[in-house]
Amino acid sequence: MLTYSQAANPTDRVSRDIDHVLAHGRTHYQEYLFFRSQAHGVCVALDGDIQSCESDEAIYHEALAHPALLIHPRPRKVLIMGGGEGATAREALRHDCVERVVMVDIDREFVDLCRELIPGWSAGVYDDPRLELHYEDINEYLERTGERFDVVIGDLVDVQDWDAPAGDLYSRDFYAALTGCMRDGGVFASQAGALSTVDMDNHNRIRARIAKSLPRVRSYGLVVPSFYHMWSFVLGSAAPLDCGGASLAECFDERVGGRGVGLPATGSGTLAGAFLLPRLLADALKG
Amino acid sequence: MLTYSQAANPTDRVSRDIDHVLAHGRTHYQEYLFFRSQAHGVCVALDGDIQSCESDEAIYHEALAHPALLIHPRPRKVLIMGGGEGATAREALRHDCVERVVMVDIDREFVDLCRELIPGWSAGVYDDPRLELHYEDINEYLERTGERFDVVIGDLVDVQDWDAPAGDLYSRDFYAALTGCMRDGGVFASQAGALSTVDMDNHNRIRARIAKSLPRVRSYGLVVPSFYHMWSFVLGSAAPLDCGGASLAECFDERVGGRGVGLPATGSGTLAGAFLLPRLLADALKG
Amino acid sequence: MLTYSQAANPTDRVSRDIDHVLAHGRTHYQEYLFFRSQAHGVCVALDGDIQSCESDEAIYHEALAHPALLIHPRPRKVLIMGGGEGATAREALRHDCVERVVMVDIDREFVDLCRELIPGWSAGVYDDPRLELHYEDINEYLERTGERFDVVIGDLVDVQDWDAPAGDLYSRDFYAALTGCMRDGGVFASQAGALSTVDMDNHNRIRARIAKSLPRVRSYGLVVPSFYHMWSFVLGSAAPLDCGGASLAECFDERVGGRGVGLPATGSGTLAGAFLLPRLLADALKG
Amino acid sequence: MLTYSQAANPTDRVSRDIDHVLAHGRTHYQEYLFFRSQAHGVCVALDGDIQSCESDEAIYHEALAHPALLIHPRPRKVLIMGGGEGATAREALRHDCVERVVMVDIDREFVDLCRELIPGWSAGVYDDPRLELHYEDINEYLERTGERFDVVIGDLVDVQDWDAPAGDLYSRDFYAALTGCMRDGGVFASQAGALSTVDMDNHNRIRARIAKSLPRVRSYGLVVPSFYHMWSFVLGSAAPLDCGGASLAECFDERVGGRGVGLPATGSGTLAGAFLLPRLLADALKG
Repeated sequence: MLTYSQAANPTDRVSRDIDHVLAHGRTHYQEYLFFRSQAHGVCVALDGDIQSCESDEAIYHEALAHPALLIHPRPRKVLIMGGGEGATAREALRHDCVERVVMVDIDREFVDLCRELIPGWSAGVYDDPRLELHYEDINEYLERTGERFDVVIGDLVDVQDWDAPAGDLYSRDFYAALTGCMRDGGVFASQAGALSTVDMDNHNRIRARIAKSLPRVRSYGLVVPSFYHMWSFVLGSAAPLDCGGASLAECFDERVGGRGVGLPATGSGTLAGAFLLPRLLADALKG
Repeated sequence: MLTYSQAANPTDRVSRDIDHVLAHGRTHYQEYLFFRSQAHGVCVALDGDIQSCESDEAIYHEALAHPALLIHPRPRKVLIMGGGEGATAREALRHDCVERVVMVDIDREFVDLCRELIPGWSAGVYDDPRLELHYEDINEYLERTGERFDVVIGDLVDVQDWDAPAGDLYSRDFYAALTGCMRDGGVFASQAGALSTVDMDNHNRIRARIAKSLPRVRSYGLVVPSFYHMWSFVLGSAAPLDCGGASLAECFDERVGGRGVGLPATGSGTLAGAFLLPRLLADALKG
Repeated sequence: MLTYSQAANPTDRVSRDIDHVLAHGRTHYQEYLFFRSQAHGVCVALDGDIQSCESDEAIYHEALAHPALLIHPRPRKVLIMGGGEGATAREALRHDCVERVVMVDIDREFVDLCRELIPGWSAGVYDDPRLELHYEDINEYLERTGERFDVVIGDLVDVQDWDAPAGDLYSRDFYAALTGCMRDGGVFASQAGALSTVDMDNHNRIRARIAKSLPRVRSYGLVVPSFYHMWSFVLGSAAPLDCGGASLAECFDERVGGRGVGLPATGSGTLAGAFLLPRLLADALKG
Repeated sequence: MLTYSQAANPTDRVSRDIDHVLAHGRTHYQEYLFFRSQAHGVCVALDGDIQSCESDEAIYHEALAHPALLIHPRPRKVLIMGGGEGATAREALRHDCVERVVMVDIDREFVDLCRELIPGWSAGVYDDPRLELHYEDINEYLERTGERFDVVIGDLVDVQDWDAPAGDLYSRDFYAALTGCMRDGGVFASQAGALSTVDMDNHNRIRARIAKSLPRVRSYGLVVPSFYHMWSFVLGSAAPLDCGGASLAECFDERVGGRGVGLPATGSGTLAGAFLLPRLLADALKG
């Protein structure tokens, strides 16, 4: 029996049996594993962390992309950092006001594997003329580009070892460069790992770093069943993250309708409700 | 290394290392295990199912007890079926309009173990003169009692094997007897197992049975981190489950304030938001 | 983390972390998995059963091949049933009296994978003019061949489900056909699964079936560290399995020397000692 | 599901499901766990290491005690260091030439637990007038006693962390003190952990330390099925460990008969054969 397992914390573990290994190897940048699980369909892991699974990747990617896009009154230009599966771009392009999406992923080999092995994740986005794809280090891209974006979405690997190179992705310099390429009123969204009563550290570290560059931050989370966790996200902005004062629920509902966005996996109510974290978690947020 | 593990479905598994086994044995009715885990504090399992853990039992018990109590305009008499840890009674007694709570648990030995080993769960409720505790089969109690209740809360073990005796707890006869002891406008709440894209069967089976006796049903769910799942619940009633037409969020907020209910683990917004299930789940509800 | 695990019995389990999956797939006949483990080097599993690992495949294959070859006074012709890794042929060819080895393995795709991925197992035997390789069902081969052998070695997958097709490999018909192709004084050897105080059934079933066709049977076993078990084997013959009355230790020692056989992983004393099973096991042998 | 698991090495793991925890706690000296497993009956673990299981503790204890006793031409006085389960004393007392057994175990609470929970292990030895039991640190006992022994058996916990206090048990000072209390021709036996191609370090470290004080050392090993390993032992002596020149097999056989020793779990042939280690292991022995 072949099993994939991942520590939830130093003493807990989630494991899933594997039906078939589609691909296992290393690109120049990371170790990848594509496998099929009976419960969750094809799952993708990078460096030992599940990135998404067929059964509910849509929940994850809708939750990652849409709150930032919906809180912004009219996002036209979107930057996606990472997002190699192509699903974050797929979600961003659902907003009919979005005119241009730039996706910057360093790992061409991984992007190609995703296009070959899980084409449903990208669902044709690479044919959409609004999408521009760069295989490049995001730090270098941020330095060289003069372009400014309404919404920036960080779909990068989870940072577990803060001393490892990947930690740079969320470094202070990185956030400084990032804010430099956001338009006025721009909104930044990042996944921020599992959120639980047991370990808030990862989330709070990401939240605190974002808060250094962007004065307004909001956390939200919702369960992604195949992750066996509430998954968390952080929004950051120089502008208020409040939909101009309306309730998030009404604002999301209205904008989803106005922009022709389908949310087949979540719904605008679910996305707004994701900001209502249980107090045991909300009280432990820092930054 | 001593480890507690539980299948999430036929191919996935969650395991947690055990620091110390506080008690392991069988009462006349069930196998119990009390253990301490580094991540979640003391956890209680019955017949191989985690019932609750110290780190977030308050999230679970607030989510189980309060939506039914808050949707009812003025609950005075509450029946708790099961609930041996004492924490469901603890939550019910937080509503100052509640005049009487009857708790019926068949297993005196388990209740005594909980009082000794996890006194923080019951938090003194057995000294509250509003609580009446019967060690009795719930079916027999329902038959013999003439009393009628505003809110009935089913805090019973999860039914995994529908042919086993415990299955009777949720049988059609049981629900008929149950509705017979509910007052007009009474609300029934039951925990309904894990809810995920992967397996809706357990939830839908409970939901369908409740719907046979009580024409209105609503499902809700929220993540209980130590369960590694979104945990689900079902409300049932002969009356509309809509807070008299107000939004749940406003209704819950107002009644929590009016009745002096503290919700230290969740919050009224979180409990209202729990009804906004992701579409992938909501679309799979039946009954 | 990718892990390979295998049940030792219904309640025990051995698991090993995987560094790298070399190949995972299905041939026409079976599911194969080649993986590298830090502790044991490359391991090969078929249909969920470890076949051998780099760290100690030589112990397994020496133990499988040599006792039958050494008990026979002068084996010239050897038949290997299965043995796709090529290592059993490698061992048989070490006896300088062996003039011809016929290896019959149904699964050409698996043999080719072994030649590509674990060439050290076969160590050049396919270039040895004494070896003849057939890709054929062993039952068909036994029916069609007129050839008779001094030693026959059954290096076939472990039979766990006795109702499954693979069970035919060890059926009564099979043994009847087998004995028909053995010369006078011929010796048959088969691996016979793990041997432990906890489960003798598998071994005893194989032993009993061999005993139906071949009146003399002897069991032996030795630990193969990467299997986490004592591994067992059964010899069968129409002739006495006693080295002409000498002690096995002396007989093995003398013949190993006389035939120029190297036993780098075990030694003649170890192979003779493998017949001295602990009484708890020996007393539980049947057939 | 409650499971007990133990690392075989940094990447492999053996786990067994638990039917029932009989006792789990800490004495003044160590953490103990008594549990029932379906496959192996009651198992005893100390500080996370299985000590022995009901299904085959007799194999382990016969293998630990008898080779030293049989190699000695006429052991009268025996010292057991540790051995809290009482089974090593049980085996020593089987030799009718043994007049006195001194057992020194520091942990009275653990010995009492064994007498209560696994009385079959000690099998009445505490009523045998030849046994003297001291609850005392073995180092202190060795310093204060003036007594000298024919055979000394080290049945102490496995030393995994060589910097931890338990490491002292096998320190050089300890061995110096030990040899001081051995009679001429005395034989020392110690268990020496799992022996496998993958890790010889533990065994070799124990072997090397014994060799510093006792010029002759011999290693042997045999599979203890519930340990999922070949288990190893080391003999040490100032005298030759060769049964006066006879083959071990003949010597053991004769002395077992002459002293009225039953060996229901192993047999004299099995114990002699245990010295014939596979070459892959024998070649890796050091010291």
